[in-house]
Amino acid sequence: MKFKTASIVLLLAGVIVSCNPKASEEKTEAKDCEKELDLSPEKLDRFGITNKEYLSAASKRALEWEYIENDWYREFKPMKPLKGDLAYEEGVVRRDPSAIIKENGKYYVWYSKSTGKTDGFENYENGKVFPWDRCDIWYATSEDGWTWKEEGVAVARGEKGAYDDRSVFTVEIMKHEGMYYLCYQVVKHPYVKRVKNTVGLAWSTSPNGPWTKSKEPILKPADNGVWLGDDVNDRRSVVKKGDFDSHKVHDPCILPFKGKFYLYYKGEQMGEEVLFGGRQIRHGVAIADNPKGPYVKSKYNPISNSGHEICVWPVNGGIASLITTDGPERNTFQFAEDGINFEVRGAVKGQNMPHAIGLNRTIEVSEENPTAIYNWGLSHVYNSWNYQSIMRFESRRVRSHDAKKAMKKK
Amino acid sequence: MKFKTASIVLLLAGVIVSCNPKASEEKTEAKDCEKELDLSPEKLDRFGITNKEYLSAASKRALEWEYIENDWYREFKPMKPLKGDLAYEEGVVRRDPSAIIKENGKYYVWYSKSTGKTDGFENYENGKVFPWDRCDIWYATSEDGWTWKEEGVAVARGEKGAYDDRSVFTVEIMKHEGMYYLCYQVVKHPYVKRVKNTVGLAWSTSPNGPWTKSKEPILKPADNGVWLGDDVNDRRSVVKKGDFDSHKVHDPCILPFKGKFYLYYKGEQMGEEVLFGGRQIRHGVAIADNPKGPYVKSKYNPISNSGHEICVWPVNGGIASLITTDGPERNTFQFAEDGINFEVRGAVKGQNMPHAIGLNRTIEVSEENPTAIYNWGLSHVYNSWNYQSIMRFESRRVRSHDAKKAMKKK
Repeated sequence: MKFKTASIVLLLAGVIVSCNPKASEEKTEAKDCEKELDLSPEKLDRFGITNKEYLSAASKRALEWEYIENDWYREFKPMKPLKGDLAYEEGVVRRDPSAIIKENGKYYVWYSKSTGKTDGFENYENGKVFPWDRCDIWYATSEDGWTWKEEGVAVARGEKGAYDDRSVFTVEIMKHEGMYYLCYQVVKHPYVKRVKNTVGLAWSTSPNGPWTKSKEPILKPADNGVWLGDDVNDRRSVVKKGDFDSHKVHDPCILPFKGKFYLYYKGEQMGEEVLFGGRQIRHGVAIADNPKGPYVKSKYNPISNSGHEICVWPVNGGIASLITTDGPERNTFQFAEDGINFEVRGAVKGQNMPHAIGLNRTIEVSEENPTAIYNWGLSHVYNSWNYQSIMRFESRRVRSHDAKKAMKKK
Repeated sequence: MKFKTASIVLLLAGVIVSCNPKASEEKTEAKDCEKELDLSPEKLDRFGITNKEYLSAASKRALEWEYIENDWYREFKPMKPLKGDLAYEEGVVRRDPSAIIKENGKYYVWYSKSTGKTDGFENYENGKVFPWDRCDIWYATSEDGWTWKEEGVAVARGEKGAYDDRSVFTVEIMKHEGMYYLCYQVVKHPYVKRVKNTVGLAWSTSPNGPWTKSKEPILKPADNGVWLGDDVNDRRSVVKKGDFDSHKVHDPCILPFKGKFYLYYKGEQMGEEVLFGGRQIRHGVAIADNPKGPYVKSKYNPISNSGHEICVWPVNGGIASLITTDGPERNTFQFAEDGINFEVRGAVKGQNMPHAIGLNRTIEVSEENPTAIYNWGLSHVYNSWNYQSIMRFESRRVRSHDAKKAMKKK
């Protein structure tokens, strides 16, 4: 009889071990709790544990993994350049592609576009502080996903004095009941390190526009952090940090979900730290009854304590999220049946990981292949600090390993 | 008063939450346990949690992190090629560098060397099944760590019929009380996918040799797995998988520790699976009173359920380990006061991560900078599937983030 690797044995052998097995010195006062682990012969054999009476800290952690099957696991390939108008162009920034949708027989993508080099914060009044400063939102179309035609501006910065007068960028697209919605980051002049950005929304009956902008931002940072001192370019000194999104609300993405609209976003906190997993970057969600809002932030925020750009898609009746770049849960696929309480479903390699992903929403996902949407899509690459271009990423499922395959992919 | 980001508050606010907050459907029968989380105002502010009565699954996981400070956190730079004899050479495999030690005013490194392309398993009798097949152990020296002089063979394969007649490779160096010890992987002919490799040892009073080999392997795979069928090139079909190291014992590294000798190694299990974190690769340890053995495997094995090549060093009175490549804990620095029960101390990015690391043991580490040993060292790169060359890696500590710095490193 062949060993069935996918069998899940729920029989608990009844051995109790600590679920907080080895506290660091700082935490020895915390009370350990006890938890039953599955120490059935099948589980021990599957995990290769030598002696169930002598479990290492690592074995205890492994026995607590909630989900171990490989149906979410994937490996990413090196990114490839696009052709046509989205090929790299010296002197131009094109970055942060939206999701891809298909309309009128063509793929559509929106993105941030600006020109000229980045000056930094010394000259924030007249210069360009970041590559994503002084951007407008442009869009392009393609028949094959490789060669793209730039169609022009979709949403431009506002007039001087408007809430979006400095930069509009990092856009996402949602199509819902015949309407198209672009949501995006907004910065009002002057762009200093302490600036609090907002999220804007525009809508149209056609992917080609014209777009109508919201009169006010649809999302703002929390206002419960307190800066220390008055240096507008000191982002780290605080008296109180405040909520996870007290400084920035970034990378918005709206998904229709359970009859409402879930606006996922990245929060940056005033006084952001580097912890054991890198930058303290978190995700939150705000929920509305209507695509145009008002959006109310969830009391459960933050909903991720790792990640960077938002990358979410609906699957299996819930919402899935790819967590990249920052924090100890980086490079994981996660899933939440309720769109809020995310659990790890796959932990992928860091090699070739695309960032600022534009998901390809034309690819169907299923319970059998919940990450099919990663077969190909868009991302960007830093050709230099000044100039970025949009690239194509691809990935493949990996469900078993043998020597021959190992060769090919290395 | 400036907010002290490093303050650790032990006051527990007394709210009890589940430590297994959201079980997947398969595990709903498992009994949750309860654990007290630190919900002090300081902790909530540091983590940016919106409402302590509404903790998301992610917030609960974050509040359970055992160690959150950034003193182990690092970022790796792109690898750089070496010069002299260790520069890439077409037609030659040089890979899996040992640790670097300094003797006679020069750096020394040992490595696997073979020539010619890889044929695969079709012709395992006469061909080369892997780049690390039909290797001998060579060594090189350098004055500056950049330009290396290849000094010749250190340990060659044995005569036909010997336990090491097919390949000796993936070597580590230990200096102890005036003696030098090389431990390495060994394969006996024929090299089929089901072959069970062993670990060999050689010693000398000089880093230049001559080397005396152990008459027998010092470590062998566990013998409690059972193959299914008799295809010698089917490594996945099993009736019983057996211990984590029932198939392979790889990447040995011996460290003197607490008056004994800890032989860390990578185990591969018969019937290896791909789980949610990739290949099922684990680490174990075997302990001896004497450098030459006998080595007795720890009952606590496996001691890591993630990782690939062994990369361990002594620090702060314990043993630290860098976990790379495979499994959900990949790309973490871990530490075990007892050399066995490892806990995560830093979770680093996957970009530019070196594999098959040769640690630079000439760099001093300290409690203040426990990962200083990663300032620079050696690794290898796949120039092609056939040919690999040794490269230099570098990394730097990252303890805070601001916009200006972000620019520079991107």
